[in-house]
Amino acid sequence: MAEDQNAQTELHELRKSIDNIDAAMIHILAERFRCTQRVGALKAKHDLPPADPAREAYQVRRLRALAEDAQLDPEFAEKYLAFIIREVIRHHEKFRQQPDRQ
Amino acid sequence: MAEDQNAQTELHELRKSIDNIDAAMIHILAERFRCTQRVGALKAKHDLPPADPAREAYQVRRLRALAEDAQLDPEFAEKYLAFIIREVIRHHEKFRQQPDRQ
Repeated sequence: MAEDQNAQTELHELRKSIDNIDAAMIHILAERFRCTQRVGALKAKHDLPPADPAREAYQVRRLRALAEDAQLDPEFAEKYLAFIIREVIRHHEKFRQQPDRQ
Repeated sequence: MAEDQNAQTELHELRKSIDNIDAAMIHILAERFRCTQRVGALKAKHDLPPADPAREAYQVRRLRALAEDAQLDPEFAEKYLAFIIREVIRHHEKFRQQPDRQ
């Protein structure tokens, strides 16, 4: 019973840390999309293609190396980057479709 | 020509910010998985189920509200959480399948 209570307390503590980490992630993601929105506007203005395979290959290599240093699964880091980039490209395409964009 | 040069310089600057943000994200993710690995070990030891729908519903509500404050698409915040939780559950299930776990 006391052991179960300790487990519940530890679970509660870990979840408070996870909630703090998630709040940080949401704000970091918001800032990342602010940057990519500026990239999108720049690309649209100068008629550059939304996707950039050379840049993405560089990002994959770099994030896999950073993940290894941080003992995070590099496969997961790559999947995570692909997940974010899919959303960024969706934003860029949506932006290009706006009839009143400059 | 000068305008194209300026666009390239601005793109380069924005990408440096994105690279910094991504390095921060990788380290935050690594810490998040350290926490969820401890949660997984605790759940396995006390025979608690890997998934917890009430906890997840709380997380979705909270992250959507945080996303709105940060002007991040709440739909994306929810997709982000689902993406991370899928990986966490995969870790928990893998951990339970280890024959030598305590």
